[in-house]
Amino acid sequence: MARTFTSSPVRDLLALANRPEVISFAGGLPAPDLFDVDGLRAAFDQALSRRTLQYAPTEGDVDLRALVAARMTRRGLPTTAADLLVTTGSQQALALVVTALLEPGSVVAVEEPTYLAALQCFQLAGARVVPVAGDEHGVDPAALAEVVERERPELLYLVPTFANPTGRTLDAGRRAAIAAVADRHGLWVVEDDPYGELRFRGEPVPPLASFSDRVLHLGSFSKIGAPGLRLGWLRAPEALLRTLVIVKQAADLHTSALDQAAAAVYLGATDLDEHVRGLCAAYRERRDAMVAALPSTTPEGTRWTDPDGGMFVWLTLPGDVDTGELVGKALERDVAFVPGAAFYATTPDRSTMRLSFTTNAPDGIAEGMRRLATVLR
Amino acid sequence: MARTFTSSPVRDLLALANRPEVISFAGGLPAPDLFDVDGLRAAFDQALSRRTLQYAPTEGDVDLRALVAARMTRRGLPTTAADLLVTTGSQQALALVVTALLEPGSVVAVEEPTYLAALQCFQLAGARVVPVAGDEHGVDPAALAEVVERERPELLYLVPTFANPTGRTLDAGRRAAIAAVADRHGLWVVEDDPYGELRFRGEPVPPLASFSDRVLHLGSFSKIGAPGLRLGWLRAPEALLRTLVIVKQAADLHTSALDQAAAAVYLGATDLDEHVRGLCAAYRERRDAMVAALPSTTPEGTRWTDPDGGMFVWLTLPGDVDTGELVGKALERDVAFVPGAAFYATTPDRSTMRLSFTTNAPDGIAEGMRRLATVLR
Repeated sequence: MARTFTSSPVRDLLALANRPEVISFAGGLPAPDLFDVDGLRAAFDQALSRRTLQYAPTEGDVDLRALVAARMTRRGLPTTAADLLVTTGSQQALALVVTALLEPGSVVAVEEPTYLAALQCFQLAGARVVPVAGDEHGVDPAALAEVVERERPELLYLVPTFANPTGRTLDAGRRAAIAAVADRHGLWVVEDDPYGELRFRGEPVPPLASFSDRVLHLGSFSKIGAPGLRLGWLRAPEALLRTLVIVKQAADLHTSALDQAAAAVYLGATDLDEHVRGLCAAYRERRDAMVAALPSTTPEGTRWTDPDGGMFVWLTLPGDVDTGELVGKALERDVAFVPGAAFYATTPDRSTMRLSFTTNAPDGIAEGMRRLATVLR
Repeated sequence: MARTFTSSPVRDLLALANRPEVISFAGGLPAPDLFDVDGLRAAFDQALSRRTLQYAPTEGDVDLRALVAARMTRRGLPTTAADLLVTTGSQQALALVVTALLEPGSVVAVEEPTYLAALQCFQLAGARVVPVAGDEHGVDPAALAEVVERERPELLYLVPTFANPTGRTLDAGRRAAIAAVADRHGLWVVEDDPYGELRFRGEPVPPLASFSDRVLHLGSFSKIGAPGLRLGWLRAPEALLRTLVIVKQAADLHTSALDQAAAAVYLGATDLDEHVRGLCAAYRERRDAMVAALPSTTPEGTRWTDPDGGMFVWLTLPGDVDTGELVGKALERDVAFVPGAAFYATTPDRSTMRLSFTTNAPDGIAEGMRRLATVLR
């Protein structure tokens, strides 16, 4: 075999967290109890036809692209259907960008910690990943400028809004500054935005892509609709989009035509803003329940993020502790989390961990946090 | 941008062939009039649930894998669910194999002509493609052995049964000989088998993968069910399958969970053998209509294949003719075909062309062939 790859430790862990008695804060899953099962069932029934069972254009369903473009435009990112490529989840959008822009030895800049399946994608491409320093407001533009000068990365990867795993949001001033660095150096930036609509507090920040054409915006149906359908989309400048369409054609010809058509019917028939408001109301309660329990769950000196939206709280424990050694004990007590080390491209901070608050109701969160306290304290 | 890619000329052509007045023999599409719309609609209605709307394991739906494994076993390739990875169409299976096994500069051996989206996949990976000589019985094992000695390919790519574009089938003796070459040299072989069940004449030939563990078998729901769902599968030895699962995780996390579950419900509830017999009966009539019209459609000295199954007839015109120059004239007369040059990795035979007989009923085929005669004769 020409190449070897290693499995994701989080993935192996999640297999253990699937026992029904486990209260899992590990998965990055949306709440299944909030899926609009009836709405989606009706949409599939309406969308299924000889046309949607046949091969379809690689670019994606024209109705879906128009509806997504209108939605992005309303959110502050002027977009037309022609700017968009529908992808098999936004994970595929990232994989296509990697294929189009990187080759073995290419350099990718990331904030640390960051989304681990993105790191895996860069590793598979043989890219070298370099971290950019940041703080609670996200990546630091001055640090980025220095990394760009020194390392000449092809690509900067960011989850600017409610980041995975930290829950942090890059502020508007820094967005403008990062866009300026990208413009100046001809750097491509990926704005991975699966969580942006899940805001429970504060005012929306303009999409990073609204500041520069060097920013590729990745969106997803997974957190506002349902992830099982694997529907994402990618907004890119025309020349790069043409290349990405060719790369996608080789990758899977096109994304499920029926799933795309059903999503288009659903977006056309449903008040998705109302549905998202419902998600946000439920997730706000769940975040509040988790954050309220943290003082009695963690040892003195623990720090955590209190995110304005998204799905995750990020913890840093005090002292010389390795959360990777605690996760087995947690599973014995029927509670699961993700040790933080997996989210680092370079030197991990092993005292960190990620908790997801989305899939458990407040009662379950309270009970899970009590179990977790017996491990952490 | 680090890399540049070119679009598929056939793809650009197909855009022109979409006018409703065109009788198209160009697309490699299954007949939409034969889709089991009602059966699939019922399957989607039954399969849609909170579980199938959620994220799912990368390996694929366990029920679908078990049903596909049983079907492959009945077709002469003993298979368990654990041997299979569900993919987003068999195009993705090929793309994953390419990512796992090839790197820039790797060598891939192919029969010529061959499936053009496979060639595109190899080109994207930066591989060098070398042809292996063959004849009407498929690739020649002695020629393969010589290419393997000389070029040391990592991979041999074949559509052994009812090949795209030629319709040819590799005979059993050659399959055994090719498997022996693969075993002897540690060569990986891809058996791309989207058409294998569409046999209208003669006896089934054992799958190439039944002769050697070095053969990766790619199957698809596209030609026996519906291509819009993008469902394929890949059978590989355990160690390589583990790597392919990791590669797929980075590519799109998993294939649509709902589409997989619906296909499992459909396979469990339907007599697919009966459905396939119906497809074969219709396609046999359509092939017969096309082959019967060929003598009056083509100039004296034209050669064509008369396939035992699949979707394609392959023509070689006499003399110094370039079918790429005829296709515009054909479209003016509202008939479409694919010029053969695109299916060659090296020096094309420009006097060739591919005709698909699947999507038109015998009447339409007769009319399309009359139009084509005015271009070819």
